[in-house]
Amino acid sequence: MKKPGFIGIDLGGTNVRVGLINDDGEILHSITKPIRAQDGPTKGIQKIVSIIDAILEYTEVEPRAIGFGATGPVDHQKGTINNPYTLPTWENVDVVSPIRERYEVQVCLENDADVAALGETWKGAGIGYRNVAVVTVGTGIGTAFIQDGKIFRGFDQLHPEGGHIPIDPNGPECYCGANGCWEALASGSAIANHAKKMLPEYPESVLRLILDAHRLDAKSVIQASSQGDDLAKRIINLSAKYLGLGLVSLIHLHMPECIILTGGVMRSFSLYKPTLIDIIRKHSVMNPLYEIPLVMAKLGQEAGMVGAARAAMLDRLLQ
Amino acid sequence: MKKPGFIGIDLGGTNVRVGLINDDGEILHSITKPIRAQDGPTKGIQKIVSIIDAILEYTEVEPRAIGFGATGPVDHQKGTINNPYTLPTWENVDVVSPIRERYEVQVCLENDADVAALGETWKGAGIGYRNVAVVTVGTGIGTAFIQDGKIFRGFDQLHPEGGHIPIDPNGPECYCGANGCWEALASGSAIANHAKKMLPEYPESVLRLILDAHRLDAKSVIQASSQGDDLAKRIINLSAKYLGLGLVSLIHLHMPECIILTGGVMRSFSLYKPTLIDIIRKHSVMNPLYEIPLVMAKLGQEAGMVGAARAAMLDRLLQ
Repeated sequence: MKKPGFIGIDLGGTNVRVGLINDDGEILHSITKPIRAQDGPTKGIQKIVSIIDAILEYTEVEPRAIGFGATGPVDHQKGTINNPYTLPTWENVDVVSPIRERYEVQVCLENDADVAALGETWKGAGIGYRNVAVVTVGTGIGTAFIQDGKIFRGFDQLHPEGGHIPIDPNGPECYCGANGCWEALASGSAIANHAKKMLPEYPESVLRLILDAHRLDAKSVIQASSQGDDLAKRIINLSAKYLGLGLVSLIHLHMPECIILTGGVMRSFSLYKPTLIDIIRKHSVMNPLYEIPLVMAKLGQEAGMVGAARAAMLDRLLQ
Repeated sequence: MKKPGFIGIDLGGTNVRVGLINDDGEILHSITKPIRAQDGPTKGIQKIVSIIDAILEYTEVEPRAIGFGATGPVDHQKGTINNPYTLPTWENVDVVSPIRERYEVQVCLENDADVAALGETWKGAGIGYRNVAVVTVGTGIGTAFIQDGKIFRGFDQLHPEGGHIPIDPNGPECYCGANGCWEALASGSAIANHAKKMLPEYPESVLRLILDAHRLDAKSVIQASSQGDDLAKRIINLSAKYLGLGLVSLIHLHMPECIILTGGVMRSFSLYKPTLIDIIRKHSVMNPLYEIPLVMAKLGQEAGMVGAARAAMLDRLLQ
C-alpha cells in the first residue's frame, strides 16, 4: 500500500505553490510556478492539475486529501474563489469540484491568511500553542486566528478582517471608507502615507531625496530609519504605536496564547518590538497581556502550502 | 429516582441569587438574599449553603452539579474568588471545595459576565446561536463570549477584558492608566464625565441644574436626552458613537452570530440603536457586519443564575 500524504496548494496573485506533505508536516516535494490570472480560471486550474500530476509522478505517496489556500475572498462552504482584484477574471470560480473529480479525494478551500496561520501553528512559530493569532503587516494588515488547532471562523463562515478595526476616530480615511482603520495607520502603505504627510516638517530628511526619485515606500522609510534618519525614525515609532494599539484590541478580545507577526513590514520586527512591548504593557492593567509571546513567523513562503495540506488533513479527520 | 436538576449561584457584591434549574433551563425555585461581603467569606459560604438547603427542602429534584458565577476576578481552575474590590475580605477564597464537600456533586466557578452570557445564549436573547458576544454597558463596559455554546476562555484561562480596548489614542485617561479605553468613552461613568466636560459650552442645559444638585450621572443625562435637552442628546450621540466603534472592533475580530447588549445604560438601547447601526454600517465594507443581530438581553437579573446552572451542566457533560 502506498504511504498517505496530503497536497497543499497556495494560490496567490502571482504564483501558485503546490506541495506534497506527509502526516508529520514534512514537505516531500513542492513546485512553484507563476500564475497568469488574466489567462482565466480554466487555464489556471489546468496548470494546477499539471503541477499536481508532476509531483505525484515523482513519489510513492498517495494523496488522501487536497487543501487549497487562495487569496480571498473565498467561499469556504461553496468552494469558490471570488477575487477579481488580485486574480482578474476569477469571479465565483468553483476550484474544488474539478480538482475533486480529477483526484477522487476530498478537497477544501480556505482563505490564504487562514492556511498560512494554520501552517505556522502546525510546523512554524506557533508549535505547542492551540490558540494563535497571526497578524500580517504588508501593504495592508490581515488577521487570522487558530483556535483549538483549527481555523477560527466567524458569523456566516466569514474570515475576520482585523485590518479594519478602528484605531483612531480622527485618523486618515481608509480605502474602505471608514476613518483611522488599523490598516490605514500601521500598514506598509500607511508608512508611506505618514512619510508624505510629515515631510514638510523635516526639510533635512533623506526621505525627501527618495521622494524626488519617486521611490518613497515602506521599505525606503524602514531603511532610512535603520540609518538614523530622524523623520524615518519618527514614522516607524508612530506606526509601531498604532500597530501596538491594534494588537492590544486583538489581545483583549481574543486572548491568544501566542501572536505571530508576518508580512513584508515585519521583516523589520526588531525596529518595532520595543514600542510594541511598551504599548502592550501600558494596556495590561486588567490582564497580563505582555505575557503573551510576540514572535516572528518561521515558515516564510511555505506557510500557506503547509497549512493548506493541514487544512485538508483536518477536514478529512473531522468528516 | 429523583428528577435531576442543577443549582446556579450568582454571587454579586450586594446580593446572592440561588436557583434550582432543570435540564430545559426552567427555574424550579429560586431565592435571592443580600450578601454582606464584609462579614467575611466563611459566613458568606454558610449563607449560600443555607439557601441551597432551603431550596432543596421544597423539591423532589436532586442536584447533579452546582455552578457558581461570581463577580471577578475569579480563578476558574483553582475555584477561587479574589475580589477585595466589590467583595471586601474575599481574597483568594476557595468557594468550590466547601460546596462540593457539602453536596457531593461537581462544582464549577465562573466569572459573572461569562455565566450571564451563557444564560442569555441558552434561554434568553441568544437562543439559536452558538457564537454570541455579550456586551455589558453599565458603570463600566464588560465583554463575554460564548463559542460553540460554551464559555470562551483565552490565554491562561483569562476572561477577555473588552472594556479596555483602545478606541481613541487622544481620549481621556482611563482608571487602568491607558488612554481612550472603550470603558473611558462609552460607559455610564464616561457619560457623566462627558457631561461635566461639555457643560461650559451649554449654559442653557438642564444638566447644569442637575449638576448643581450633585446628581449628574448617566441616568440623568439619558433622561434629559429623552426630554430633548441639546447637550444631553449630544452626549448620548457621542457615547453611542464610541460604543459603536468598540462594537466594530469586537465584530471584526470575533465575528459573533449575535450581539447581546445588557447593563444599566442599555435600558436606553432605543436611544443608542440608530447611531450604533450607522457606525457599524460605515465600517462594513470588508464584511457585512450590519447583518449581525444587535439585540437586548432578555433574562434580566436571572441571566447569571441560569447561566451558572448551565455551566455546571456542561462541565458535568464534558468531564
